Amino acid sequence: DVSRMLRKMEPADAAHLLESSPPRSRQVLWQLIDDDLQGEVLNELGDELQLEFLSALEPAQVAQLTEGLDDDDVADILQQLPDEVTFEVLEAMDHQDRARLEQVIFYADDTAGGLMNTDAITIRADLTLDVVLRYLRRHESIPEATDNLIVVTRKDRYIGLLPLRTLLVSDPSHSVRELMLTSQQALPVDMPDDEVARLFERNDWVSAPVVDEDGRLLGRITIDDVVDVIREDADHSLMALAGLDEDEDTFAPVLRTARRRTVWLGVNLVTAFLAAAVISQFQDTIERVVALAVLMPIVASMGGIAGTQSVTVLVRAMALGQINSGNRSWLILREAYVGIINGLLWAVVVATAAALWFDSPAIGAIIAAAMVINLITAGLSGAVLPLLLQRLRIDPALAGGVVLTTVTDVVGFVAFLGLAAAFYG
Amino acid sequence: DVSRMLRKMEPADAAHLLESSPPRSRQVLWQLIDDDLQGEVLNELGDELQLEFLSALEPAQVAQLTEGLDDDDVADILQQLPDEVTFEVLEAMDHQDRARLEQVIFYADDTAGGLMNTDAITIRADLTLDVVLRYLRRHESIPEATDNLIVVTRKDRYIGLLPLRTLLVSDPSHSVRELMLTSQQALPVDMPDDEVARLFERNDWVSAPVVDEDGRLLGRITIDDVVDVIREDADHSLMALAGLDEDEDTFAPVLRTARRRTVWLGVNLVTAFLAAAVISQFQDTIERVVALAVLMPIVASMGGIAGTQSVTVLVRAMALGQINSGNRSWLILREAYVGIINGLLWAVVVATAAALWFDSPAIGAIIAAAMVINLITAGLSGAVLPLLLQRLRIDPALAGGVVLTTVTDVVGFVAFLGLAAAFYG
Ligand SMILES: [Mg+2]
Ligand SMILES: [Mg+2]
Ligand SMILES: [Mg+2]
Ligand SMILES: [Mg+2]
Ligand SMILES: [Mg+2]
Ligand SMILES: [Mg+2]
Ligand SMILES: [Mg+2]
Ligand SMILES: [Mg+2]
Ligand SMILES: [Mg+2]
Ligand SMILES: [Mg+2]
Ligand SMILES: [Mg+2]
Ligand SMILES: [Mg+2]
Ligand SMILES: [Mg+2]
Repeated sequence: DVSRMLRKMEPADAAHLLESSPPRSRQVLWQLIDDDLQGEVLNELGDELQLEFLSALEPAQVAQLTEGLDDDDVADILQQLPDEVTFEVLEAMDHQDRARLEQVIFYADDTAGGLMNTDAITIRADLTLDVVLRYLRRHESIPEATDNLIVVTRKDRYIGLLPLRTLLVSDPSHSVRELMLTSQQALPVDMPDDEVARLFERNDWVSAPVVDEDGRLLGRITIDDVVDVIREDADHSLMALAGLDEDEDTFAPVLRTARRRTVWLGVNLVTAFLAAAVISQFQDTIERVVALAVLMPIVASMGGIAGTQSVTVLVRAMALGQINSGNRSWLILREAYVGIINGLLWAVVVATAAALWFDSPAIGAIIAAAMVINLITAGLSGAVLPLLLQRLRIDPALAGGVVLTTVTDVVGFVAFLGLAAAFYG
Repeated sequence: DVSRMLRKMEPADAAHLLESSPPRSRQVLWQLIDDDLQGEVLNELGDELQLEFLSALEPAQVAQLTEGLDDDDVADILQQLPDEVTFEVLEAMDHQDRARLEQVIFYADDTAGGLMNTDAITIRADLTLDVVLRYLRRHESIPEATDNLIVVTRKDRYIGLLPLRTLLVSDPSHSVRELMLTSQQALPVDMPDDEVARLFERNDWVSAPVVDEDGRLLGRITIDDVVDVIREDADHSLMALAGLDEDEDTFAPVLRTARRRTVWLGVNLVTAFLAAAVISQFQDTIERVVALAVLMPIVASMGGIAGTQSVTVLVRAMALGQINSGNRSWLILREAYVGIINGLLWAVVVATAAALWFDSPAIGAIIAAAMVINLITAGLSGAVLPLLLQRLRIDPALAGGVVLTTVTDVVGFVAFLGLAAAFYG
């Protein structure tokens, strides 16, 4: 049965099962999870669901559940709670746990400090490998994802890494100083988490040391937590383009989901009225040439699709850190040229179809011109809007959807109906 | 200057610089990269750019450049080339490299076999740790991202893992059998890469063994390559929603970019004509009540945004493996209910605004009804279309953009203009 199945599951699998369940089943499943495992399961849940289960717990229960978790994970959980509750949970912890946690809890979740753990094994450079091996053997266990021992000075300043791989193949009479790697820089504690992730990705690190501004070792970051950052950041671009949040629970209940999506729809409504206001300026022309009403959504729709393509390419490039002052203008120009080419290409097709349909070469010419104008606008604004938002320190992905289609709708209608008004008088 | 800077860069950083450069600068930068490093830089490039540089090389040069790379990486590079060229490159390699490569090159890129390396260190269960330590010390070096030694039978069947962490803290007189982990299952060689990635993510693995159908060890997968899979799969959802490919080079030249995007625009044009055909059925009504032409894009646009939100949530959930037969219908219903609630909410606002604007309660009532109908349709089709595509073994993300907005445009226009035609006669 389910309860036996749940007991045999890894915490991450149980968390996945909870994430994949509609609200009603979740409470039942959660109760079936072994008390000893609830902490680890909680840790693997997304922010939204985590908070839901947390809010049902007393501070003392939270303190008990999080016992045995990594510092960075406990910190993440505590940061979800209101400050008073966090304080009570810390009070309920044993002295040692509290002291360790207070070292990491003040770093923001999205920085190197927030990803960091205090479980690093440190050694001095003047030891021989033989001494290091004996020192390790005195440990009960070595923390997971330990690929390097961290070499520090007497004052705890980071100076290098001794890979376990090196320790195991080298002559034990050598000193740490002779064999340590000094090429891997430590990460400053305030480095943003996406930059941390990029460094791990590019250098294929399994773990990396974190230091304060004086170069003193504070802890280490491990790849498993970086993987979660990569997943979240990638999800962020995807969700933000639709005005959604990456922390969003897939199976959130109806009312919560509706409330969350309604704002973005409201913004879109305002901009849709803007487009309607543009059309209303041309009511007389439409009344005389009703074909315009039939064809105008084509111009707007093509602009919307072309613009979405540009925004998506730009948002991904920004998330990958590919955009800089040296290539920005090349990219904007490229998008404009692509707009010209595809605008011309499809303008010919649309013009032919429209002219034949309404038996009017004039309407073909008008829609062709409007289409070229709108696809160039789509390319340009699809490239410029995300860059602009980024400069304003607003999430560039929010340039997608609502904002972009406003531009392409308005420009599309103005171009098409404006040209028609000029022609038909 | 640039050439000195490039020489000091890590291969991954040099690759990132190439990726972030417009086409013209790339050839120059590539020439400035040290011959010894070109192989590693090539390995870090995205598929499109990789192929571009590869096609300029002779088979013998490819063989030389890829010397020293991991098997899985060489296999990735060779799989990019036409079969005849791959054959010539293999011919040009030294005997040992070729033999090793032929073990991995036949596995598809997107399976465990394609991610696998043959550099695992294997040991027997009946050895003592002491013997293992001496055996390791005879190695020149231990491969990167080695956290476990792999325990196999005499017939090379996988039986367990001996973590280096355990080796370093345990009594050397113990046997491997006493201390090895047998709980981590090996990955079958044909497991899809996204499933491999999910297992690594959930279990926080650094490496994992790969076996054939008889349980014989074939190699191991390391986290650095899994990170690349996670990044690519997340990018895939993002790009596919806009009809783009995740392998796409951000700085591809104008013509190549235009050609690539033109297909999706062409599909959209066909569907836009479908929407236009719907409108044309109501030309008489529009001629009499031109306010309909002004307001109809509002209904379509709100449906498009609401539908995009549903599709995005579904596509992400599918990529995370959260959807199954048990929760599918709950999710579809949830989206429909959200459509009803947000439809009703914004219908009231739109109805009021439209009625006041055109001084006609009838038009307010008509647009309200159309809006509710279209937002329910948006929620339902946003949830159902991706599920349907998946069942047809088509990429669910392709349900976004073009396909979805066709539904919401057509339904929006039919509902709004149809109700108006019925009312105004
Ligand atoms: Mg979290
Ligand atoms: Mg973040
Ligand atoms: Mg944290
Ligand atoms: Mg990498
Ligand atoms: Mg951790
Ligand atoms: Mg973690
Ligand atoms: Mg590749
Ligand atoms: Mg793939
Ligand atoms: Mg491969
Ligand atoms: Mg994990
Ligand atoms: Mg590598
Ligand atoms: Mg590899
Ligand atoms: Mg690789």
